[in-house]
Amino acid sequence: MSDAYAAAGVNIAAATRAKELMSAAVRSTHGPAVLAGMGAFGGCFDAALALQGLAAPVLVSSADGVGTKTVIAAALGRYDTVGQDLVNHCVNDILVQGAKPLFFLDYVAAARLDPEQVAAIVGGVATACRAVGCALLGGETAEMPDVYAPGAFDLAGTIVGVVDRAAMLPRADIAPGDAVLALPSSGLHTNGYSLARRIAAQDGYAARPAMLGGESVGEALLAIHRCYLGDVAALRAAVTVKGLAHITGGGVFDNLPRVLPTGLGARIERGSWAIPPIFTYLVERGQVAEAEAYHALNMGLGMLVVVAAANVGAALSATPEARHVGTITDGAGVRLE
Amino acid sequence: MSDAYAAAGVNIAAATRAKELMSAAVRSTHGPAVLAGMGAFGGCFDAALALQGLAAPVLVSSADGVGTKTVIAAALGRYDTVGQDLVNHCVNDILVQGAKPLFFLDYVAAARLDPEQVAAIVGGVATACRAVGCALLGGETAEMPDVYAPGAFDLAGTIVGVVDRAAMLPRADIAPGDAVLALPSSGLHTNGYSLARRIAAQDGYAARPAMLGGESVGEALLAIHRCYLGDVAALRAAVTVKGLAHITGGGVFDNLPRVLPTGLGARIERGSWAIPPIFTYLVERGQVAEAEAYHALNMGLGMLVVVAAANVGAALSATPEARHVGTITDGAGVRLE
Repeated sequence: MSDAYAAAGVNIAAATRAKELMSAAVRSTHGPAVLAGMGAFGGCFDAALALQGLAAPVLVSSADGVGTKTVIAAALGRYDTVGQDLVNHCVNDILVQGAKPLFFLDYVAAARLDPEQVAAIVGGVATACRAVGCALLGGETAEMPDVYAPGAFDLAGTIVGVVDRAAMLPRADIAPGDAVLALPSSGLHTNGYSLARRIAAQDGYAARPAMLGGESVGEALLAIHRCYLGDVAALRAAVTVKGLAHITGGGVFDNLPRVLPTGLGARIERGSWAIPPIFTYLVERGQVAEAEAYHALNMGLGMLVVVAAANVGAALSATPEARHVGTITDGAGVRLE
Repeated sequence: MSDAYAAAGVNIAAATRAKELMSAAVRSTHGPAVLAGMGAFGGCFDAALALQGLAAPVLVSSADGVGTKTVIAAALGRYDTVGQDLVNHCVNDILVQGAKPLFFLDYVAAARLDPEQVAAIVGGVATACRAVGCALLGGETAEMPDVYAPGAFDLAGTIVGVVDRAAMLPRADIAPGDAVLALPSSGLHTNGYSLARRIAAQDGYAARPAMLGGESVGEALLAIHRCYLGDVAALRAAVTVKGLAHITGGGVFDNLPRVLPTGLGARIERGSWAIPPIFTYLVERGQVAEAEAYHALNMGLGMLVVVAAANVGAALSATPEARHVGTITDGAGVRLE
């Protein structure tokens, strides 16, 4: 090899090829607020255009990864979905503050960059961005031999969105007796994969246990993180949404309290929603205690929504997939009853 | 171990402890534009306050990592500097568009999270954010067994800044005959570490070759990425800056052309600036050809600045560390002469 730099493990040509492959996908996410130009060390976004009409715009930003879901993606050779997981996770996180997405930046790293794999990953990021009107404004790819395990990769990203200050969530008027609704998850979303992988290793990703209805374990584990932007828009158009909780790492026990006033908690009623089969499989096959399962996994509760009890009917009409799963209570903590 | 989730490799208690350790550092970066509140799934930043007085605000955003500089940091057990590298890298990237930092989000991942190490890393991020008036608005830590090599970690981040549209760089009037000035680098900054590590392995990081003037190879390689925000502010106060090029991966050959109008190039004159000793050591010890060295490494040229030839004197007076290193020429490409 004639180039000392390539010999030391960083293949600049591969990085360049990956950039070419994904540039069309990236451009497809660009609306009029994205300012193209020379010398783009940073992506440029027209704030005057994006924030117009907002009385008191607040930028809301969140950084996230997809955890070891990347290990399953690599094992199955399926690189086009984790990018959607990542974007949807971030969109849901800022949705909890009431914000809508403006732009996104991603970070993909591996011991070696395979241009086609990187293009598939970033293509997935672009697909999910396009679906919610979010510009993929920039990103970084990194080859890091000695940091990543062979064949493994990591994927992280940052979203920036905006909300008018008066529309920010959660509202301060969440009170005992309010209803907790749940929007269903599509599966594990992006949390609990270290646990899930350990359990799945017993049967293998190709196994098709009867309870999964024809899907393989690997396919069920790769189900794309559901985006709740549309559901929440429909809800907010119909009723006053008091608060949202995106059920991620730490499960319902850790995430619902994050949006409740001090001293309030919630009662969640077993059997009030359908637990997707992949969770039942994991809990049974892994002999996972219920408290642990609800701490590590969303168990089908993808996004929780707090509304006044009087608004439950209107809310369920607006979002037919929602379920009434619980009630806000006096006293901190989430109890499963 | 009683908790199935911890047994599967994700130590939620360690992640929680790391968050406690770094929360004070994070809060120290928060000015009045950061809106605290319940349920912070996303960080909230008051755009009305941050953008006031700007006629046509443009948000400029960049995502970056620090590459395998993390491997040297881990080898030397020095975790407090790479966070500064990361922030300064990002600050410099958006500075090229003329933007000043608003807020930053980081991402730290490893096979296992050591709370003290994570706190040191994020403490470095906060230190560099504080130095430039940038809020550390959020971040994510991830334990990813099977993705990261034992003891290795990755660190990436995203910055969001703002510039008034009329002040955006590069300017369109860059022309042949303009001068190229250089602001000195402190060392490799955050690029070229795979090459550097291969070469340094011959003597070890503890070696103290005479040409490094008492510093060890490891210390010289960990020198913190210099932030050019202050230098550029001084320059822009004194003269019209036409363009800036942050010399990162791809070196002067790839980065300077990114800010030049099509068809223009530059001549850089050997000997017109001081090459820091760590580069001389790497080039000699690794027998790296000059063209390769200038492609993989910044070679002391940290940030290039294009000004009219008539303004060179005033620019050098405003920034005494700057050097006049070259000239904009007709014809694409950067030539070392």
